[in-house]
Amino acid sequence: MKKAAVVGGSGYTGGELARLLCRHPNVELTAMTSRQLAGTKVSKAHPFLKGFVDISFEEKLSRSDYDVVFTATPHGASMDIVPELISSGAKVIDLSGDYRLKDVDVYKKWYGLDHRDVGNLGKAVYGIPELFSEEIKKADFISNPGCYPTCSILALAPLFSKGLIEERVIIDAKSSTSGAGAEPTKATHHPTCGSSITPYKIGSHRHSPEIQMALEKVAGHDVEVIFSPHLLPVVRGMLCTCYARLGEDMDKEALQNVYNSFYFGKRFIRMTSIPSMASVVGSNFCEIGVEKAGSRNVVVMSAIDNLVKGASGQAIQNCNLMFGFEESAGLDFPGLGV
Amino acid sequence: MKKAAVVGGSGYTGGELARLLCRHPNVELTAMTSRQLAGTKVSKAHPFLKGFVDISFEEKLSRSDYDVVFTATPHGASMDIVPELISSGAKVIDLSGDYRLKDVDVYKKWYGLDHRDVGNLGKAVYGIPELFSEEIKKADFISNPGCYPTCSILALAPLFSKGLIEERVIIDAKSSTSGAGAEPTKATHHPTCGSSITPYKIGSHRHSPEIQMALEKVAGHDVEVIFSPHLLPVVRGMLCTCYARLGEDMDKEALQNVYNSFYFGKRFIRMTSIPSMASVVGSNFCEIGVEKAGSRNVVVMSAIDNLVKGASGQAIQNCNLMFGFEESAGLDFPGLGV
Amino acid sequence: MKKAAVVGGSGYTGGELARLLCRHPNVELTAMTSRQLAGTKVSKAHPFLKGFVDISFEEKLSRSDYDVVFTATPHGASMDIVPELISSGAKVIDLSGDYRLKDVDVYKKWYGLDHRDVGNLGKAVYGIPELFSEEIKKADFISNPGCYPTCSILALAPLFSKGLIEERVIIDAKSSTSGAGAEPTKATHHPTCGSSITPYKIGSHRHSPEIQMALEKVAGHDVEVIFSPHLLPVVRGMLCTCYARLGEDMDKEALQNVYNSFYFGKRFIRMTSIPSMASVVGSNFCEIGVEKAGSRNVVVMSAIDNLVKGASGQAIQNCNLMFGFEESAGLDFPGLGV
Amino acid sequence: MKKAAVVGGSGYTGGELARLLCRHPNVELTAMTSRQLAGTKVSKAHPFLKGFVDISFEEKLSRSDYDVVFTATPHGASMDIVPELISSGAKVIDLSGDYRLKDVDVYKKWYGLDHRDVGNLGKAVYGIPELFSEEIKKADFISNPGCYPTCSILALAPLFSKGLIEERVIIDAKSSTSGAGAEPTKATHHPTCGSSITPYKIGSHRHSPEIQMALEKVAGHDVEVIFSPHLLPVVRGMLCTCYARLGEDMDKEALQNVYNSFYFGKRFIRMTSIPSMASVVGSNFCEIGVEKAGSRNVVVMSAIDNLVKGASGQAIQNCNLMFGFEESAGLDFPGLGV
Repeated sequence: MKKAAVVGGSGYTGGELARLLCRHPNVELTAMTSRQLAGTKVSKAHPFLKGFVDISFEEKLSRSDYDVVFTATPHGASMDIVPELISSGAKVIDLSGDYRLKDVDVYKKWYGLDHRDVGNLGKAVYGIPELFSEEIKKADFISNPGCYPTCSILALAPLFSKGLIEERVIIDAKSSTSGAGAEPTKATHHPTCGSSITPYKIGSHRHSPEIQMALEKVAGHDVEVIFSPHLLPVVRGMLCTCYARLGEDMDKEALQNVYNSFYFGKRFIRMTSIPSMASVVGSNFCEIGVEKAGSRNVVVMSAIDNLVKGASGQAIQNCNLMFGFEESAGLDFPGLGV
Repeated sequence: MKKAAVVGGSGYTGGELARLLCRHPNVELTAMTSRQLAGTKVSKAHPFLKGFVDISFEEKLSRSDYDVVFTATPHGASMDIVPELISSGAKVIDLSGDYRLKDVDVYKKWYGLDHRDVGNLGKAVYGIPELFSEEIKKADFISNPGCYPTCSILALAPLFSKGLIEERVIIDAKSSTSGAGAEPTKATHHPTCGSSITPYKIGSHRHSPEIQMALEKVAGHDVEVIFSPHLLPVVRGMLCTCYARLGEDMDKEALQNVYNSFYFGKRFIRMTSIPSMASVVGSNFCEIGVEKAGSRNVVVMSAIDNLVKGASGQAIQNCNLMFGFEESAGLDFPGLGV
Repeated sequence: MKKAAVVGGSGYTGGELARLLCRHPNVELTAMTSRQLAGTKVSKAHPFLKGFVDISFEEKLSRSDYDVVFTATPHGASMDIVPELISSGAKVIDLSGDYRLKDVDVYKKWYGLDHRDVGNLGKAVYGIPELFSEEIKKADFISNPGCYPTCSILALAPLFSKGLIEERVIIDAKSSTSGAGAEPTKATHHPTCGSSITPYKIGSHRHSPEIQMALEKVAGHDVEVIFSPHLLPVVRGMLCTCYARLGEDMDKEALQNVYNSFYFGKRFIRMTSIPSMASVVGSNFCEIGVEKAGSRNVVVMSAIDNLVKGASGQAIQNCNLMFGFEESAGLDFPGLGV
Repeated sequence: MKKAAVVGGSGYTGGELARLLCRHPNVELTAMTSRQLAGTKVSKAHPFLKGFVDISFEEKLSRSDYDVVFTATPHGASMDIVPELISSGAKVIDLSGDYRLKDVDVYKKWYGLDHRDVGNLGKAVYGIPELFSEEIKKADFISNPGCYPTCSILALAPLFSKGLIEERVIIDAKSSTSGAGAEPTKATHHPTCGSSITPYKIGSHRHSPEIQMALEKVAGHDVEVIFSPHLLPVVRGMLCTCYARLGEDMDKEALQNVYNSFYFGKRFIRMTSIPSMASVVGSNFCEIGVEKAGSRNVVVMSAIDNLVKGASGQAIQNCNLMFGFEESAGLDFPGLGV
């Protein structure tokens, strides 16, 4: 059993890491930190873990012999913690946005911060296992993608990879409210959002450059991303509806073959006609469907659980690859379905 | 046209007062106050009122010649504002909890405050028009009931009034989240409450003594109220399921006759088999249904829009009675239905 | 008072017509028909109308002297009813899809039916008052637009009208479930749709050619519409997120000026930064917001109540124009806001 | 590995059995039947199981050597299937209502059917493992309880078992819509139920005599149950708020001690202050909280996932006991929490 720690465990992704790790066959969760909750039981902050996770929050990690550390710290905090963790010899998987954007100017533009750990920025492997598994297997440090990027990159990567679409793509993304985190805000106040869908940060969300960066890596050329997030009155799950323009027309069947072939053997990709949030919620699966809408227009839909495949599940999938475990270890169960 | 002002207009009940008053045939909304929002347009805080309410928030009322002032201030603040308003000669309708409980010790127990306006406490008429219209018509000062009390008192009053039930009643109440106000909290954070029903303050909610007080007035004897509020994943509306024990058994038809007779001619009471939140939302109606559950057990269900009949609509209904207007003036429209 | 009848009154749009007409100052609802419910009270099918609508359903209209008849019949049924109604001298407003598409081949392609009233097809004026008020004022027969078309055409018309965008537009539309009608289906079964957003009929929804037709009329040239409807877990309301490509770049302020100018004086259009479903629900308003997303890309968002501005409210707005009433007669109230 | 079959696998409980069995360490799902779907893949009806369940539906079981058969057939159908299954030597767990009520007259009254398998009725052990584990361990045939009974019996059993409460109890139950099954109905049509809580069958739901029967067995005396089910706008989960009257007053701490002691060592009972639907959804846990509401009144709240602990999970828990497996085999994971 590998020993794992979670730094910053009071939020939703921390709780989700614990939920998943507590039944992992090869990894044992041995420590979680939280400054505010130091000394209290993890199962006090996350009552659904009572009977599964018996440790208490530490203020900071008290030991330095973890095999793997997940940092579920806020943006801006991770880059102060990661260097020491890497030095300790642990494999590190950072769930924040600190190591996703490789260009420090781009990082500063979107996060409003000077990057304080440029040295490790270059070492961080962007962790989408379906696309970058070879790099991930060799990595000691993973920058775990955001939920919107995971969902939309998986939808569009096959088309860019095969050079089938033009460089401009539109991503109309619909997220559940748990994606906004555990802290109450005006936007996630139930009377505000409970019977509506609300667009926000149209064209100005910080996941936009992250999506662009990854798609450019896959495409090998410039990509223009028009990204429109919306907040759904749903607690878990995410759907992206992506619009692209084919270089040359292809019929729907040919497009579906591209996807079937591209994702052949990928355990957590499920091709379907219409992706279902209910089918993926609770699981690490991503469902993808492809439609044509008139000549040369392709519409790709993708659905994930934002806290699993969009965060903690994918982090564990990366962890599995890094240690040479079965890729689906600890994640091999279906979504709720209903 | 009577001139109306709203003190404390930034919250949901303030917005709702404005929504209803802007189409009232006999009352004109001429001022709203808000300390934080002084100087900004009312329609900035309540964007759905753009085109209907063109005034700006004042820090405090700048004039003293209003015919009626609605105080939608927090508990504890109303009692500092009301005395001067009453002195100004305006009719005052207070939507806070400050003047509902007639006993200052009971008030202190449940609100944690010493009452600072005992003089007016006795003058405040508890404003449920279906029960106390004669007093309301003569009143200059109304204490407007809470949403839970309105919904459950209307459900149980006929049975207590006719002396048909024992003194102990159980009220299992289900409220939408707008009843919790405009301020984001952990309890109303969408990921917390968006897919659940959550009981809270079981046996210890401050609406409990208010319900008891009003039912005792109707019954003419002691009443014991067991009150269990729950938070629904719904934005507007409230349902109360009330359980009482008949002194002597009666069949369902006889019980329904009691209600039909008690509420005969009451514009905003609608007897039905199963009350529907959808039918009352957006309106001042209260739907009531009566069922038997075995011998001597009666179950009374009632549904209202917590912001209309449970707050601002009832305040306007009280206002109508005080000025001798048609009771339904400005309120004579149906709920959304769907 | 003009005398109105509703043919096909058992569904949601029929109920909504009654809800709105019962407080119209110039029009009186005097008859409603329903084959299945003939002889029963309208308020039995629509219990929220009890106390407002006291008539019973007729099997078919028993008189022929109505000033205006609203046909809320299913697609395919309207074209058998409308000719006689027009002959009777009544003004007719058809809420079905039968008279929206002017080309009978296009109609057959999307509705699967031969058109049986080609004579009146040419007379039907497509009723979006903000765009076609001059024609509507002179019309005796209106084809009332669908909800998706209303919401997306209002969003895009100013840009097409001023020749500012390229011909291909993408409309990512999110509808509440009441748009699917009163008949239970697998798609609207709560366990299926209650915690998800579900795309459907991507690129193949019959509102697509209707949107195209209206936008081409506004643009004066060919338009390509990529239309993706989604089903929201919300009962009322609709949001469209529309993507267009500017011919020449313009900044956001200039774009907003285009909208402010285009819709100047239009009572039911409200320009805003982010449209809010909650603000328009219950009302005839359409909220529109415009954003830039990188150079030359414009994102236009629009929100309506699908049953009001998207159906019955707009029908009444058309009726008002036809009779020379105030355009907002019977519709001059704000949305719920919360 | 024991070989399991599911008869009647097209509905929600069938899908849930498959979801749980596909990761059970000691039981293998080898057959599922469905008359309508015979010949199609199980993962076509339950797409979330693609990659986990690879069998196709059979019209009827083609073999007779199953170790255990779960019958997820409708009420009235089970009693025609069960006798043969029992004869085959399989252990049988029936999820329908056919074998829950031991008195055939009571069965006829509530289900409207003559019982056609009285012989096996007496053999069926009512399967709530926390209460009747000794009988279950020895049983070959289990009648699996309904969701409402499971949730409310677990809430009230400790008080009745210890003789602490009077015989009359009130159960105000709130169910998600998946409890109503996979077939669309008016009641579960999203526009009808999506923004409301709806009481139904007050005092006349067929789970009422089942609850009474089980509580009488626990209490050893007559029990009167007043049972009020409500439909929530939630897809999964259930909450019961139960009201009982103490024979002699006890404080809250003493009551909680009763529960802690009664359920000591029970893996799937979690005592808490306020039960959370989110904490139990996706899992086999039941959360229970106890409150006082004035002298001698006790309010017990309980929450379960209606499809897991309320149906398929409990069926597997019973299966585990029958075969001597670890009670939590295949069920040992926490709920989603968020």
